[in-house]
Parts: sequence; structure tokens; C-alpha cells
Amino acid sequence: MELDLIKSLLTSGKKSKIVLLVMDGLGGLPFGEGSLTELEAAKTPNMDALAAKSTLGLHQSIRAGITPGSGPAHLSLFGYDPVKYFVGRGVLSALGTDFDLQESDLAARGNFCTVDSEGRVTDRRAGRIPTETAERLGQLLNEKVKIPGVEVFLQPEKEYRFLLVIRGQGLAANIEETDPQMTGQKPLVAAAIDSQSEKAAGIVQEFIRQAQEILKDESPANMLLLRGFAQLPDWPKFPEVFGLKSLAIAMYPMYRGVAKLVGMESPTAANSYEEEIDMLEKFWDDYDFFFVHIKKTDSYGEDGNFEKKVEEIEKVDTLLPRIMALDPSVLIITGDHSTPCEMKTHSWHPVPVLLYAKQCRPDGIASFGESACRQGGLGVRFPSYELMPLALAHAGRLEKFGA
Amino acid sequence: MELDLIKSLLTSGKKSKIVLLVMDGLGGLPFGEGSLTELEAAKTPNMDALAAKSTLGLHQSIRAGITPGSGPAHLSLFGYDPVKYFVGRGVLSALGTDFDLQESDLAARGNFCTVDSEGRVTDRRAGRIPTETAERLGQLLNEKVKIPGVEVFLQPEKEYRFLLVIRGQGLAANIEETDPQMTGQKPLVAAAIDSQSEKAAGIVQEFIRQAQEILKDESPANMLLLRGFAQLPDWPKFPEVFGLKSLAIAMYPMYRGVAKLVGMESPTAANSYEEEIDMLEKFWDDYDFFFVHIKKTDSYGEDGNFEKKVEEIEKVDTLLPRIMALDPSVLIITGDHSTPCEMKTHSWHPVPVLLYAKQCRPDGIASFGESACRQGGLGVRFPSYELMPLALAHAGRLEKFGA
Repeated sequence: MELDLIKSLLTSGKKSKIVLLVMDGLGGLPFGEGSLTELEAAKTPNMDALAAKSTLGLHQSIRAGITPGSGPAHLSLFGYDPVKYFVGRGVLSALGTDFDLQESDLAARGNFCTVDSEGRVTDRRAGRIPTETAERLGQLLNEKVKIPGVEVFLQPEKEYRFLLVIRGQGLAANIEETDPQMTGQKPLVAAAIDSQSEKAAGIVQEFIRQAQEILKDESPANMLLLRGFAQLPDWPKFPEVFGLKSLAIAMYPMYRGVAKLVGMESPTAANSYEEEIDMLEKFWDDYDFFFVHIKKTDSYGEDGNFEKKVEEIEKVDTLLPRIMALDPSVLIITGDHSTPCEMKTHSWHPVPVLLYAKQCRPDGIASFGESACRQGGLGVRFPSYELMPLALAHAGRLEKFGA
Repeated sequence: MELDLIKSLLTSGKKSKIVLLVMDGLGGLPFGEGSLTELEAAKTPNMDALAAKSTLGLHQSIRAGITPGSGPAHLSLFGYDPVKYFVGRGVLSALGTDFDLQESDLAARGNFCTVDSEGRVTDRRAGRIPTETAERLGQLLNEKVKIPGVEVFLQPEKEYRFLLVIRGQGLAANIEETDPQMTGQKPLVAAAIDSQSEKAAGIVQEFIRQAQEILKDESPANMLLLRGFAQLPDWPKFPEVFGLKSLAIAMYPMYRGVAKLVGMESPTAANSYEEEIDMLEKFWDDYDFFFVHIKKTDSYGEDGNFEKKVEEIEKVDTLLPRIMALDPSVLIITGDHSTPCEMKTHSWHPVPVLLYAKQCRPDGIASFGESACRQGGLGVRFPSYELMPLALAHAGRLEKFGA
């Protein structure tokens, strides 16, 4: 869907409220001996009753057969075609660690690694060093690396992974990755791919040179690899494109980060589902659009814990009356992608969605689950980024196209 | 679907096997008084049982309402959008006659025709002369036409139709067709449309001049018309795009030809369905992807022979246990297009498809037919070229997109 088209059709002065409730990794597969998915096995009397008055469907984030990462999957839910609006790994890492990335910053994803005496990579993950070791090494590098004219921030993520941010002026991100993607080879040169990126590439090369010197007596993490060089993208902003003052309510940095990337507000993190709904109630009059993110459905999917994923879905169901009591004009309940317990990982399978609005065309199916959604009026395998225009339409926020 | 995107997400080192079983012209319509299509009327206990564990759908090769030829329909099954990856009629003719077309060759589709004493076309098909007459005329032209620097091959197809190949260096195919598409007009000039094609156009004009002289005393085939000038396209190759060492198993040249056009291997033709499955078994360890083509479903569709088309589908069903015994990671059973007996020709109606894989999301519908497929999780009227990325995903051969 073309964002310009949507923007050109926005009505003004509407007070309607839209809630997008995302259970991360909601989609599933029949597990073990059963023929029911997680969502189908969960007892969800509130969602089932709402489904009867809603339009259902199954959406896909990227393209047929493509398994989405969390970043692109959320961008698609927010109305952005994630193939067109691609954001580099460095920026996603910054969002995930809650790093306050500035417009001119250059970000990259890094690995600590092990090299032999001739500089060839022997372990791309440095034996998966514990996070505490990476924290110590990060502190060491932050103290000792000195490059004139720029600041360098190395922020550990989990185990051997870290975020690198270089802060300065005139930086660009079109820089070759240094990870050779196999052992037995030396790290590649962080070469500039275009002339605009030459300054930044020179700084990155100097950083790597100093880092290698500082790490040389460490073991096993005596070197580092960098990839996914990126800067904050210059995209149309969600509040302008969709004409919605927007609030992101989430417990984890990654999801508040992606929301902020497109211009939503997210002043604070929540600490529980209840607190998320508290925030929804508290800010109800101040915003038009509310993105509410539920994390643990995905986590239990990745653990392969069917019972726990079912339980989380059931917990969310108990929160529904509080949301409905606010009388939203449009409520969308869905996931960002599938994380079937059967697979213990994100998958490409399409994601169930329920769209409730006073003027939706109800399918009359009193059940919210993959099989029910396959019969729904939104269709199957439609692009996730069509949900936002559908939400706007059902909220009475779009003009007629043409006369 | 962007082929570059798929290629960028390929995993390495996977050993999973994909089988694409294509019954040509499989899709149908309820026939005569009955309310069942060919596929629905056929007794297919093996396919029905497999359907219960599969995801179903209905795909369309080109665009809504467009009836595909065999070439584009197969390209779409192979993952290539046939509107973007268009191949000229001349090359398709070469594939269909098993002509060993070289990269620098110029190919065209030809008709023998009849002209009057002033050179105006009076019959565009020369009274549909028998194939034997065309063979004699072809031999005559192959012997007598002499053009310096090039070789000319005229190979009869069926009745008045033939393939023309000009072999030489520096040829290009942007040349006007000579068929005026109506009687009472003279053949058009084979003029170059761009400067690159001037050399080739001059050679074609000289060929036509000599051919007219050689044929002038023949009746009714005293002239010829040429169209669909084309050269082998320079497309991304299937084995590289999808990361699959690929074998095409078919009885007819056209289908092995289209497969070879995209880079699949097809060392020999099979002589029966049983021999096709023999080849599948024999080469199972040597390839990752197997395209198995069944021709006669289409032929009986074109004949309007409902019983025989049903019978062919039932024969294929009996082969299924042999395929399943190989334990494919992914098995897709479908057609390239519809050829309803009711219509006796290819049609635009979407084509039933069954995708079986251990990690598919089963629809739980124990029947393989048009009505059943309409309820399926793959959706209806989705582009045929989405099947390959879906196959790769279900075979565990695609990485996650973004983080």
C-alpha cells in the first residue's frame, strides 16, 4: 500500500480511537499429538465472543515463505512494507538495547571473536563468552579507544554480541561488513562502498585497529567483527502518514524502539500486562492510536513450551473486558509473526488477526484461531501492512478516492 | 516476489528434498450434468489422505483472467513472474522441438502461407498443409538457402508451423514480425526496431527473399511468415536463485526445454509415468529439487475427454506411494494451468495445489479438488510464482528476514 495515497485521503477532526493489540509470535502449529494450535487450544471466551462480531483473516509480514524478524514484522503491522522500508541491523540493535540513537550516529552489530596468531578467525563467536565478559571488554574499549572528532560507544547485548555506535558528523553507512562468515579467513576490511561513506569507513578501520591492539592478550575474545552498518532512516512518520497521535505501550526496548523509529511516542516502559492496560486507560484521552505489545507468547514459542504459551494467551483474554470498556472504535488483535512451539523459532506461517469495529462486516465465526481465520473476510496471506489502512477505514478516518 | 530477496536469504548445507509434481492442465470445471470437476470426480485415495496433512490453495500463473501458455505457466511454477520474465515465441518453439538452441542463435516461429500473383497473402496457413509437406519444404529450404556467414535451420513443427533458427555472430532479436495478421495484404518487412538488430534483420530479409524464390512454384505453400523473433534470455538461473541442484523429469521436449531454460538439468526423456518415477528414485540422492511432469491430463482436457482425464489423474494417484516412500521434505502436487474438458482448451481458472511438508499448517481437509482447495490456507488466486519460496521455507532453506 502506498503511504502517500493513504495520507492524501485522511479526514480531519475525527476523534475515533484505534487499538492494535499484538501478541508477539502469536501464530502457531498443531503441537504434539493434538490437532489444535496454541491459540486454538487456549480458552479465550472474550476473544471468541468478540470474533463473532469481527472480521477475521491471516496476514503475512514480508512475502510468501519469508520468516520475519521482529523489526520488519512490526514495521509491516505499522503499515510499512518492510522490503521497501528496510532498516539495517545496527539500528535494530540500538532499538533493542534502548540506546538513544541520534540522527547522525553510525550504528553496527558486532561479535567478539577469536583469531589465531596470523589474524585468521578461528571462532566467530569467541566461544560464546558470557555476557559479563562482554561487559568487561566493552568497558575496556569504551575507556581506551580514542579517535579524534568522534565518540565511540560499545554496548554489550547477550553473550558475544554487542552494539557499536560511532557519534560524529558527516558519517554514512555504506560500508562493507568485516565478518568473513566462515573460519580460517581474516576479517574483511570495512571498506567504503561509496564516496560519501569514506570518512566513516576510515573511522571504523581505525576503531578496529585500536580494538585489536587492546584485545590482543584476551582469550578467547581477542578480536571483533562488525556488520549491519546503518543510520536512522528518513522515513515518512506514522503520525503524519496515518494522521494519528500514537502511543506505544510495551515492556521491552525493542518494541518501543521500532515504534519510536516510525515516530510513535513511548515515554516509559510497562512492567506487566496489567500495567500496560493501566497505561492504556490513563492515556486514553491523549492519543488516537495505541500499540500494545505482549512479549511472552513469543518467548514461550521459542522455548517450545505449549502450555505456557497457551496460558499467556489466556491471560491476555482476561484483559479484554478492560480494553472493550474503553469503547475503542477499532480493535485489532493479532501477532507480528508466528512462533510455533513445534518449531521453537519464528516462522513464515501466516498470522491470525481479528478486526473489530462497529462497521466491520462480521464473519459470524465465534472463535479466534488459525482455522477460523482461514475462513475470514480479510483473506489469507494478505500483507500485514494492509491492516493500518483497514483500521483507518473502519475508524472513519479515510475519504473516498475519486468522485 | 523478488528473486534477489530469495537468493539473499538462502541457508547453506541443507539436505532437504523438494518434489514438484505437475499434472499439466489439471484444473477443470464441472462437466456436463455433473457437479464435479475432473479432479473431484477422480478416485484419489492417496492424494486425499495426503491433503488432510497438507495446506491447500488455488494459484494463478499470470494475472487475473489471463489464460497461460505452457511456457509462461511453467516459468511461474518455477518461481519466475512470467510477465517480467517473458520469453519470445521463437525460443519456446525451439524448446518444444528439442532444438539445441545456442546463446547467440536467433529463433523465430514461422507459418507456411499462400500468396497471390501480386504477393498478397490469401491464406495465412497455406490450407493447413500436412506435416509431411512442411517437412519436404523445410528440407528444400535447408538445402538451397545460402547466406554468407550464417547457418539457417528450418525445422517443421505441426502442419504449416515451423521453427526458424539463424546461427551466427552479432545477431539481435528486435525485429518486426512479417505476418500481416489478415489476408489481402502483403507480408510486412522484417525491419530492425533498434540499431543492434540491423545485421540480423538484413539476414532475415535475405532469407525471406531466397525462400520466396525457392517456394514460388509450390502450391499452396508458396511463401512464409515469421514472428516471435527471440534469443535465449539471460535470466537468473533456478539452481542459483533457489540454491537447489535440480532435475526435470518429463516425457515431452517442451517441458524439459522450459526447465533447461532456467538452468535445471534434464539429461534424458522418460517414456512413461512409471519411468518418470524410476528416474526420481534413481536420482534421489543426486539432486535437491525434482520437477516431475505429467502431460496427458492436458491432452485429454483439450480433447474434451472427461473420463480419460479422470483416468490419468487416477493413474498418477497410484504413483503417490512410491513418491512418499522417498520421504520428500516438501511435496507439491498441482497443475500448470487449467484445461477444463468443458472448454477443450487452456483456461484462466485458478489451479488446485496441495503443499505437503512436516511443518506445514494442515487445513485438515481430506480431499484434493477445486472446492477443497478454495478453503485452503495458501489462499485463492495467489501467484503461482509464490510456490517456490513457500517450498523453500517448508524445506528449511530460508533464513529469517531482518532481526
